[in-house]
Amino acid sequence: MQSKILIKNACVLTMEKEEILKDQNIYILNNKIFHVGKEIQNFNPTYVIDAKKNLVMPGLINTHTHVAMTLLRNYVDDVNLEDWLFNYVFPIEDELTQKDIYYGALVGILEMIASGTTTFLDMYFFEDMAAKAAQKLKMRAFLGYGIAKNDLEARIIKTSNFFAKYEKNKLINPIVAPHAIYTNNDKSLQIAKELQEKFDALLTIHLNESRSEVENSLKEHNLTPVQKVDQFNLVNSKSIVAHAVHLNAKDIQTIKKNDATLVHNPISNLKLNSGIMDLLNLQNEGINITLGTDGAASNNTLDMFETIKIASLLSKYKNNTPIGIKAFDILKMATVNAAKALQMENELGKIQKGFLADLIIVDINNPAHKPQNNIINSLVYSTSKGDVLTTIVNGKVLYEDRKFKIIEQEQIEKILNQVEKIIKRVSKKIQKN
Amino acid sequence: MQSKILIKNACVLTMEKEEILKDQNIYILNNKIFHVGKEIQNFNPTYVIDAKKNLVMPGLINTHTHVAMTLLRNYVDDVNLEDWLFNYVFPIEDELTQKDIYYGALVGILEMIASGTTTFLDMYFFEDMAAKAAQKLKMRAFLGYGIAKNDLEARIIKTSNFFAKYEKNKLINPIVAPHAIYTNNDKSLQIAKELQEKFDALLTIHLNESRSEVENSLKEHNLTPVQKVDQFNLVNSKSIVAHAVHLNAKDIQTIKKNDATLVHNPISNLKLNSGIMDLLNLQNEGINITLGTDGAASNNTLDMFETIKIASLLSKYKNNTPIGIKAFDILKMATVNAAKALQMENELGKIQKGFLADLIIVDINNPAHKPQNNIINSLVYSTSKGDVLTTIVNGKVLYEDRKFKIIEQEQIEKILNQVEKIIKRVSKKIQKN
Repeated sequence: MQSKILIKNACVLTMEKEEILKDQNIYILNNKIFHVGKEIQNFNPTYVIDAKKNLVMPGLINTHTHVAMTLLRNYVDDVNLEDWLFNYVFPIEDELTQKDIYYGALVGILEMIASGTTTFLDMYFFEDMAAKAAQKLKMRAFLGYGIAKNDLEARIIKTSNFFAKYEKNKLINPIVAPHAIYTNNDKSLQIAKELQEKFDALLTIHLNESRSEVENSLKEHNLTPVQKVDQFNLVNSKSIVAHAVHLNAKDIQTIKKNDATLVHNPISNLKLNSGIMDLLNLQNEGINITLGTDGAASNNTLDMFETIKIASLLSKYKNNTPIGIKAFDILKMATVNAAKALQMENELGKIQKGFLADLIIVDINNPAHKPQNNIINSLVYSTSKGDVLTTIVNGKVLYEDRKFKIIEQEQIEKILNQVEKIIKRVSKKIQKN
Repeated sequence: MQSKILIKNACVLTMEKEEILKDQNIYILNNKIFHVGKEIQNFNPTYVIDAKKNLVMPGLINTHTHVAMTLLRNYVDDVNLEDWLFNYVFPIEDELTQKDIYYGALVGILEMIASGTTTFLDMYFFEDMAAKAAQKLKMRAFLGYGIAKNDLEARIIKTSNFFAKYEKNKLINPIVAPHAIYTNNDKSLQIAKELQEKFDALLTIHLNESRSEVENSLKEHNLTPVQKVDQFNLVNSKSIVAHAVHLNAKDIQTIKKNDATLVHNPISNLKLNSGIMDLLNLQNEGINITLGTDGAASNNTLDMFETIKIASLLSKYKNNTPIGIKAFDILKMATVNAAKALQMENELGKIQKGFLADLIIVDINNPAHKPQNNIINSLVYSTSKGDVLTTIVNGKVLYEDRKFKIIEQEQIEKILNQVEKIIKRVSKKIQKN
């Protein structure tokens, strides 16, 4: 049977224009937006949602996270980066099973759904488990097995199998994911490029995140991380470069010339003391910029509205101006710019006829949004995850009126109990070691 | 009749110790905490709240805001400070009536209640209207009429009458509020000190907020704003100094020596490009530091959990360390330090027998808090206003299970409609001028 959803009585921010449309009806036929407008269509919906004058906008796209790291949320904070990685993160990761990753991913995806994210891009190990979790919760995902010099052969096989398995999947999109400059060598970077070409795929990589990463790369290669991976043509129009906090003029020109996307992760960058990306200047260079939360272990949420606000505030600080990035431009980073990065600019990131029905309803009628002097600014400065009422992905209602629809409460409780058990087991194990 | 509330099945962060107590019962007799513990008391509660293993903690104390400025939320953003003040804020404020201020304050207080704030400190004009709004919604408030050199006589009368009127009120606490150095002169600063002494009152003032304010003060007085007001003994143990972004070593010593409190307003300071307070060093100096949202016109929320997270993140950036302020210390700023600033450290800011029953219940069992690796860190890094379930002020349940209890939904809608009308009327008027 066809699914025919009508969302009535909505304000709409299409992200096509910097404008709020009032009294709109949105018709969703199966997984696509069929019509948006004031007029009533002869549609016979199978499901009706009354938006009650709340705001419908494209779902948020989180272009950098490690969803299963949700297991390590608040596990250790306020410590030195090396201490964090070597004494906590890596030892714990060594103990995690495929099943653990599955449960970690489920919790992270639940959090994303409830905070208005409809697509995420992820790099980790056991990505098959992230794919399984995303499919269970009907979430759109771009997933890549981390590629590194260690166990390279196994990683190539995993990546290749992953592409084969999800070739025709509507929600799961495999990508190539060389981890970073410091975990790869020439051979593995070359392999990453070959895999990208073989599968004509998107690629993501961490680059120029911390000052020490750049310094070490200069020492070792006499090149910045961006310049080093550019030797292998890894900075290209299908590249999604995470962090890019410390870029020199040549790095910026390389990214610009090759039309790569940069992902700003402002919270993780502050929390791990990596620094603040120069968002305004990079935007002025015409570079496509998107937003990410990074993993919940270094944030400690997967809440894109929080990232939106902090990105906006930091752009002012970084450039010593109260003006900074315009609110609408920040929202573009979380929607249309991200769709462009994912090469889905004609399908995703806008509320428009023929586009995929990935959208959210935001409560703009509670006291925190009143008076509604400027709804676009309110989305950037006054909205937090608690304002997300409804989340629809690929035409399916995952969350409505602040309740999960895709999964029973009882099942959620089982998942949440399961992650508590996992982290207890793993903690005990690493304390012994 | 006595009010006897039992909150059962709670995790508790008392703020006395850095520790989460499990399986607790909290007994509230009238407006005070009667008992906290595992054991069942013979209490015969008149009202029972099942916390369902969620977290009870002291309500948050917002020590700097201008609640009626909620009317200007998102009215104009991303513009230069002078443009903002002179072309928007001041012309609008000139048009606001007492009734407008009342409605603006109601909306702001509703937002605060729903985001876990139980006490706020405010400076504005028509503070009688803020007092009326706080009383209607049963909110605890410290309110001061702004004192400035213009219309000084009228301001003195307003302040004096305000003290007389609320002398014995349990929720409304008048304070003395000289606005800032640039809106006062020697005479009005002297008057402010006399009023503070006359009423043995708390005093609040904006000081050293922006670089230009400090520069202008140095030019005009050959003294920083802190040094200038110190000539009138306005920096004392009952002073609550808002902002303090740009302090020199002598300013810091003055504040320290006189045991004044500093209010950190990280979001407003970023949004208006004032800078970042050096929180970590000021804490290390032993200065009492609290948190504020500032007004919704420069934030654009009154959400203390957002301020808590951003304060923590910025402390790392400012001091170039991933360590920064400890999560528990940030929470102290929003609770016990604030209670100390308000000279209520033996009544407010902790969950403890005999303390006022100002407390909140935070949902720590949704996916965004799981696994619960460290609940204290989760309150700082993973909590947002949507996690606030219940807010109790002075033993009265104002908000429960994410619904207002102190006011009917119909009345809320009237208030929200009213503020839309106010801002439309005022906008039309100032566009004509």
